[in-house]
Amino acid sequence: MQYRLVIEYDGGEYHGWQLQANARTVQGTLEAAVETLLGYPARLAAAGRTDAGVHAAGQVACFHAAEVLSVDTVRRALNALTPRDLAVRAVDVVADSFDPRRSACWRRYVYRIWNRPSLSPFWHRYAWHIPYALDVERMHAAATELLGEHDFTTFRASGCDAAHPIRRVNVSVVTRRDAMVTYEVEATAFLRHMVRNIVGTLVEIGGGRRPAPMAALLAARDRGQAAATAPAHGLCLTDVGY
Amino acid sequence: MQYRLVIEYDGGEYHGWQLQANARTVQGTLEAAVETLLGYPARLAAAGRTDAGVHAAGQVACFHAAEVLSVDTVRRALNALTPRDLAVRAVDVVADSFDPRRSACWRRYVYRIWNRPSLSPFWHRYAWHIPYALDVERMHAAATELLGEHDFTTFRASGCDAAHPIRRVNVSVVTRRDAMVTYEVEATAFLRHMVRNIVGTLVEIGGGRRPAPMAALLAARDRGQAAATAPAHGLCLTDVGY
Repeated sequence: MQYRLVIEYDGGEYHGWQLQANARTVQGTLEAAVETLLGYPARLAAAGRTDAGVHAAGQVACFHAAEVLSVDTVRRALNALTPRDLAVRAVDVVADSFDPRRSACWRRYVYRIWNRPSLSPFWHRYAWHIPYALDVERMHAAATELLGEHDFTTFRASGCDAAHPIRRVNVSVVTRRDAMVTYEVEATAFLRHMVRNIVGTLVEIGGGRRPAPMAALLAARDRGQAAATAPAHGLCLTDVGY
Repeated sequence: MQYRLVIEYDGGEYHGWQLQANARTVQGTLEAAVETLLGYPARLAAAGRTDAGVHAAGQVACFHAAEVLSVDTVRRALNALTPRDLAVRAVDVVADSFDPRRSACWRRYVYRIWNRPSLSPFWHRYAWHIPYALDVERMHAAATELLGEHDFTTFRASGCDAAHPIRRVNVSVVTRRDAMVTYEVEATAFLRHMVRNIVGTLVEIGGGRRPAPMAALLAARDRGQAAATAPAHGLCLTDVGY
């Protein structure tokens, strides 16, 4: 039996998804809970290996087990066995051939920017604070240029282990609601730090610190042309499509 | 000169607004910052004395000072001098006769309920977790019965020091967006624990645990007829009208 979990976590106290020997990770925390439930260790595979500090509202992770357990039992047990900064929203059973990473058609992320002079007591853990004014229309126009299939080398971090830099972007939208500026982006898959590198650049465009032609940046295929990586704590993996 | 501040705070680590000798309070934290700014102590008065654990997104507080300071200087200085769970959103200068409590025409609160089997890693500090299904239409219909001027003795905590229990409710709305059920209520003023006692009762109505006639509860004028007080951490003072 393969069990598929939809999970949420506040990434603030985690060193990312991926298992590490001496650090608290989402995978490590969840595998410990699964081992307690099953009585033996089981490996977890995830749709996206989020970086340290990145949050998730709809991460997908799977494990195999010999036992036939009700999905409700699995959900309740794992929620009882995990800390409050991690929750299992839903559980279902999938075919053994299902692979949460390879079977995914798209991933969706939200990046939150708190755009007001004063820091928010509620959002400082979940949004990047930009105290100066941002021109959201300009940012949205630039974001729109990323739609479709492109070579995203300009927004790819060194150390990225993807086979190639071509990705298809389905959604790329910047909106504002009061002080909160949100960038929502959906793509077939993402390169390392791709969303955070795009956001860093969008913020420079919105702050009037660089001209807006995103298309030229993409064409340059040069990481040196993009802005510094936006901080991890504004990013949240919200959805994975199958 | 009287300065008026619009402030936000995460009430989770505060023992309420009001100054206490050996506890961290919002008033105490803010008065310490004002004293550092002015070089002498100044008393702060607030629109609403929020209880321990209650949050604010639009609390209003005032202090008098001999100096003429720019409002921008006051805002920046107080934000630099206060911790991250408290922010000064805006500052202006008001007449000496202005009283943040007595001059207020209405207050608005939001109470958040997280209504899904699993706890939210993001909202557990700011919303009451109700794991069983809530009938929001039923809750909203009951909330509507509170509109207008009524005797709110049924929802008044013991120890309330208000002169009388008559209040006018201008807004009383229950809505749902995904897992988040929100109760928004605006009134001329509120009795002690009034919002939390109403919410406790609305949740019993929404969970099918009591019949819905709010009007009969109001008419009873008996605290024993209402449900237990909802927890403080779901409540947020969002706005004060002048």
